[in-house]
Amino acid sequence: MDQRLSGIVLAAAALTFAPHSLSEGPLLGFTADGAARQRAVEAQFDAAVNAANLERWMRRLAAAPNHVGATHTKENAEWIAEQFRTWGYDVTIDTFHVLFPTPTERAVELLAPTQFRAVLREPTIPEDRTSGIVEGRLPPYNAYSADGDVTAELVYVNYGIPEDYEELERRGVSVEGKIVIARYGASWRGIKPKVAAEHGAVACILYSDPFNDGYRQGDVYPGGAWRMAAGVQRGSVVDMPTYPGDPLTPFRGATRDADRLARSESATLMKIPVLPISYADAQPLLDALGGPVAPSGWRGGLPITYHIGPGPATVRIKLAFDWRLEPVYNVIATLAGTVAPDQWVVRGNHHDAWVFGAADPMSGMVALMEEARVVGELARAGWRPGRTVVYAAWDAEEPGLLGSTEWVEHYAQELDEKAVAYLNTDSNFRGFLNVGGSHTLERFVNQVARDVTDPQTDVSVWQRLHARERVAHGEADAPVDLRIDALGSGSDYTAFLQHLAIPSLMVNFGGEGGGGSYHSIFDSFDHYARFGDPRFAYGVALVQTMGRMTLRLANAEVLPLRFGNLAETLSGYVDEVVKLADDMRAQTERSNALVTDGAYRLAADPVEPYVPPSLEEAVPYINMAPLQNASARLAKAAARYDALLEQRMATDGVSRADADRLNGILARAERALRDDAGLPRRPWFRHTVYAPGFYTGYGVKTLPGLREGIEQRQWQEAEDQMLRAAAAVERMAAVVVQCVEVLTKTD
Amino acid sequence: MDQRLSGIVLAAAALTFAPHSLSEGPLLGFTADGAARQRAVEAQFDAAVNAANLERWMRRLAAAPNHVGATHTKENAEWIAEQFRTWGYDVTIDTFHVLFPTPTERAVELLAPTQFRAVLREPTIPEDRTSGIVEGRLPPYNAYSADGDVTAELVYVNYGIPEDYEELERRGVSVEGKIVIARYGASWRGIKPKVAAEHGAVACILYSDPFNDGYRQGDVYPGGAWRMAAGVQRGSVVDMPTYPGDPLTPFRGATRDADRLARSESATLMKIPVLPISYADAQPLLDALGGPVAPSGWRGGLPITYHIGPGPATVRIKLAFDWRLEPVYNVIATLAGTVAPDQWVVRGNHHDAWVFGAADPMSGMVALMEEARVVGELARAGWRPGRTVVYAAWDAEEPGLLGSTEWVEHYAQELDEKAVAYLNTDSNFRGFLNVGGSHTLERFVNQVARDVTDPQTDVSVWQRLHARERVAHGEADAPVDLRIDALGSGSDYTAFLQHLAIPSLMVNFGGEGGGGSYHSIFDSFDHYARFGDPRFAYGVALVQTMGRMTLRLANAEVLPLRFGNLAETLSGYVDEVVKLADDMRAQTERSNALVTDGAYRLAADPVEPYVPPSLEEAVPYINMAPLQNASARLAKAAARYDALLEQRMATDGVSRADADRLNGILARAERALRDDAGLPRRPWFRHTVYAPGFYTGYGVKTLPGLREGIEQRQWQEAEDQMLRAAAAVERMAAVVVQCVEVLTKTD
Repeated sequence: MDQRLSGIVLAAAALTFAPHSLSEGPLLGFTADGAARQRAVEAQFDAAVNAANLERWMRRLAAAPNHVGATHTKENAEWIAEQFRTWGYDVTIDTFHVLFPTPTERAVELLAPTQFRAVLREPTIPEDRTSGIVEGRLPPYNAYSADGDVTAELVYVNYGIPEDYEELERRGVSVEGKIVIARYGASWRGIKPKVAAEHGAVACILYSDPFNDGYRQGDVYPGGAWRMAAGVQRGSVVDMPTYPGDPLTPFRGATRDADRLARSESATLMKIPVLPISYADAQPLLDALGGPVAPSGWRGGLPITYHIGPGPATVRIKLAFDWRLEPVYNVIATLAGTVAPDQWVVRGNHHDAWVFGAADPMSGMVALMEEARVVGELARAGWRPGRTVVYAAWDAEEPGLLGSTEWVEHYAQELDEKAVAYLNTDSNFRGFLNVGGSHTLERFVNQVARDVTDPQTDVSVWQRLHARERVAHGEADAPVDLRIDALGSGSDYTAFLQHLAIPSLMVNFGGEGGGGSYHSIFDSFDHYARFGDPRFAYGVALVQTMGRMTLRLANAEVLPLRFGNLAETLSGYVDEVVKLADDMRAQTERSNALVTDGAYRLAADPVEPYVPPSLEEAVPYINMAPLQNASARLAKAAARYDALLEQRMATDGVSRADADRLNGILARAERALRDDAGLPRRPWFRHTVYAPGFYTGYGVKTLPGLREGIEQRQWQEAEDQMLRAAAAVERMAAVVVQCVEVLTKTD
Repeated sequence: MDQRLSGIVLAAAALTFAPHSLSEGPLLGFTADGAARQRAVEAQFDAAVNAANLERWMRRLAAAPNHVGATHTKENAEWIAEQFRTWGYDVTIDTFHVLFPTPTERAVELLAPTQFRAVLREPTIPEDRTSGIVEGRLPPYNAYSADGDVTAELVYVNYGIPEDYEELERRGVSVEGKIVIARYGASWRGIKPKVAAEHGAVACILYSDPFNDGYRQGDVYPGGAWRMAAGVQRGSVVDMPTYPGDPLTPFRGATRDADRLARSESATLMKIPVLPISYADAQPLLDALGGPVAPSGWRGGLPITYHIGPGPATVRIKLAFDWRLEPVYNVIATLAGTVAPDQWVVRGNHHDAWVFGAADPMSGMVALMEEARVVGELARAGWRPGRTVVYAAWDAEEPGLLGSTEWVEHYAQELDEKAVAYLNTDSNFRGFLNVGGSHTLERFVNQVARDVTDPQTDVSVWQRLHARERVAHGEADAPVDLRIDALGSGSDYTAFLQHLAIPSLMVNFGGEGGGGSYHSIFDSFDHYARFGDPRFAYGVALVQTMGRMTLRLANAEVLPLRFGNLAETLSGYVDEVVKLADDMRAQTERSNALVTDGAYRLAADPVEPYVPPSLEEAVPYINMAPLQNASARLAKAAARYDALLEQRMATDGVSRADADRLNGILARAERALRDDAGLPRRPWFRHTVYAPGFYTGYGVKTLPGLREGIEQRQWQEAEDQMLRAAAAVERMAAVVVQCVEVLTKTD
């Protein structure tokens, strides 16, 4: 489900770099001997990886529609399970039963001032072999849209995010009782109809503007990789920032006989009808709008003057869905650990798709399979993991992370006890390494990235990424740790990280492949093999990256967490939030002065409709000291622990008993950052440092309770959340102090 | 010729502001009594201004084609002269004879991979009454293009400015032997073919992209104000940054029997064929390009994927011109001063146009005429200016400021002695006050702007502009002087300011009217009356603004220069130039490190053509101390003089003898900033503080010798120019010290 738009591959490159010598240095959590043994295993691992498997498996997995409930989805699950068994894993298919609506009726019509009926269909083209498979395929729609048949004037709302409604307000335009049309981009899609409904809109049309996702980005398919005029982006609009997973079973697994909410009770079903359309279908609707010319930043790539409306364009939208429960098939393959079988390294990728899903999710799925195959081969050759490795192929990620979420909810207690890390992949493309996740794993990620070779340049993937950061962002020349991103939502790590606070990573390559096939029928093998990752070179790099991560986490003598990176990043987040409040305070003062002096009105064009901003409540100073103090304490403890561990592992190592004690603490360390009260109004989200934004969807908000309290001008809530975050960071500092004590005790 | 694109007017505004009370405070250069008398005259002036004249005169002046040499241009000159005579002025028509090529052949054809012949013609539409006047009208072309008939592959070069060629170089694309196509914008048009020719291109096509000037900006004409698909921007491509005016007579007036260069000897004639086309004509050419996809910032608003080429698009361009000399008619109307007849206030606007020119230049021309009419009326009623007022209606501004430049060159010695200020106008639209010019006049401008009422909001035009600056740029709330812009080139102030260093101002209103009629046949009365300045309210505001300026300059007891504003601005320029060198130094170091480490190449997509930057010479530290010291000395003297003058005028004033002495110094003060050696490689430009950029055209470069020396990495030249600028500022400081001495002498 994760979308990375990027460049196009057409020709082979002339490479001129000397092969890099892979690091021989220490590995976090290993003694020198342990590191040497580990690297030997990794060399065996690398040698066994076979790009041809990736290609063959993708061809098979993406051969037919793979949505939830499709015949081919179940066949895939069973076939994947069978492969895992062949490779020596204990395999189960964990089945849940989730609400999954499919459309029975879809219509969008322009009724006035001219008439037009939207096509709502993607074409069959000879250059794309699976595009002709129409049977059993879901048409473009937004899952969990409401049923409805409404006719109203149209309003263009740009990306449909809260700032856009402020612009509308400045122009005196209300969407109350209107149908809005929003372009994809700037937020996760589900935010757009949610915000529209909050403002009183009666329906929402989503479309892919060629400015963001079409000819303005590059040549369109099949000439190039980009979205053609008739291409449509499907996708879920369930309210994932409230909770992901089955809308009817929050907090518990959607087993056959689980207690279920009535649909009317669910907090995550969309309240208004929503439908995605192509830019070919959108152009007549947008062209029929009158009213003010859209602000400069709102104008897309269609050859029209973008107007806001409302009207004269009058639109009818009619949608009906079959609201069935469907089975979802999670394939779970286990290889028991020999040293600490109750410490689990969980490694997952989803297998369901919106249609064929060659890139999303199969490009990641085949890399996970190849990793599992080689790990199985190593195991049969006598190597065994110290910790238990669990491979998961999730179903029903696309409609809202349902497969992984139900599994995590169902096995929450066991996972809370046993899972030491969750490693996620999804779509993968040619390009640069991309990692997001828990900052306790940042050093670990950097070490892995320094040991994997970039297939195009023959330097390490770390070195290539570092070069890009230097060129693009003036990153320091000195080789420090590259930062990993904080995670919001958008793929199957969500329940692990946000609900249980299990250290998680989301990894892929990208930035030089892909284009505009996302969630369309053209996310096909033919498209991927030309534009995604020709010759599956970055599929192999992903196998080598994730294989290292899995094997190192499974085998490290001491779990490879490093708290200094967390402390540094966290302190940066605290500074950001302080600055956010300061900036809002200054901005509020400035804006209130402009309101009072009438300057907004004087600066506006008197012949255009204009409503100046209102006076806003002054931003109070918020006590950040408890959080700042906690952050400082964590930094101090972290510096001590990281240095001690490094020194100890470089010399005589840690005794087995101390390692067990340490690992016992480290395995659950990230839980210190969990607050079981959850975030305000969305208790399912319990990580105090990372959450998807309530109004961004996928986009992360760090220190979310505090940050969103300030952004939403809920000062009391911000104070309360600051204290809860401070308490969490204090707990984390105490955990690190415990680790220090294990390493410094004198008995 | 000055272009200001802006919003659209369709409806009347509901106004809610209380009328402002016009300032009663002191006036720079006047005693309290003098100020009261002056304000009384200004009240009489305001009362006599009649919007109906502006409308009637524009209708007449813009009724037929007004290019150089057209019948109607001469008729207009004679009619304007006649009006001035009627109003009591001494009038002459000063005639020069300049090179003015007009096209005899124009063709652009796409020969491969598909075929298309450009239309090169603007349509007649019923909504625009003059659009049907085809007889005697010049077709779209670029004046001073070379003749030629060339066929070559096409390359898209974005705006065609030097940075764009760096991007091309990164992609390994050369324009050597190619035809380039560049979109209008980001520089004066003449820069584009000049830079193309420097890079070896054999011809240049210019077009208006709808992203900048078409449907993406707003509804197109006649539905809205913006440029329609078939609209074309004409214009000159003579190398004005080298010298403006007649290409054959630099430094001297193009009188009938002047010494003339051969065309082959002229430094300002374009070396390759250039032609402007519409976006309707450009689309097939651009769509036929292959090669790399254009970088994101290069993509315009056409519904295509922008590629760079070269080819496969192959284009033929054929141009031939009739290289005639044409007479140009400058109308000069004089009202002799009673106190200091040898101190001239010159006030000008051009009367020639590319076609009908309702906005450009007639909107400014009719305001100048109405100002002159009312001044004439005041004179007949017994009021007489202290200094001589000279009204000028220039011909041949459009092809390259020819009328005003030849006049200034011809009368250079007399103007150098007598002209105390030059006040220029050109196109005028609904909106905000816009002033550029000599910073010695900045305080003066602020005082005028506080005394003119904005017709839409009833506050002063200063207050409305201040509100906009506060809203848009976070300008301070406190009412300090609003900054005026530095002037580059683009209208008739150029010869006065840049060649002779006569304090000059360029004034207009705009930002809420206009659209995309610039230099097309649709710059018509019908367009202007709907979208430019309905009811001519801002025409009246311009009359009131310029009338005040003329009258105050003519009547001030002491010439109203204030050196503190100059010193402050100049010190800002010095800081900018220091920062420019520092930034270039850091950027060069950083880039050289990236080159050396191979980071550029690692960060680039290996399957796309890519040529990393080369190592660059390190940026030396340049001694700025002489300039900084001079600037500090000027600031100190200025503070003393400004305070002394203010105090003296507020109390007993200045004796007639002292005023004469002071005025004698002040009248020529700005000449201190003139360096008769001129700028490197373009000696015609002699102001050391302001010049049009050699690679921006209209866009100003302040401290131009020094700044361009650094930008062009000519370190020795930068050092030399720093010294010349320092010497000029020292001269200016000495002038101010002289003024202080007049005010402090004890005899």
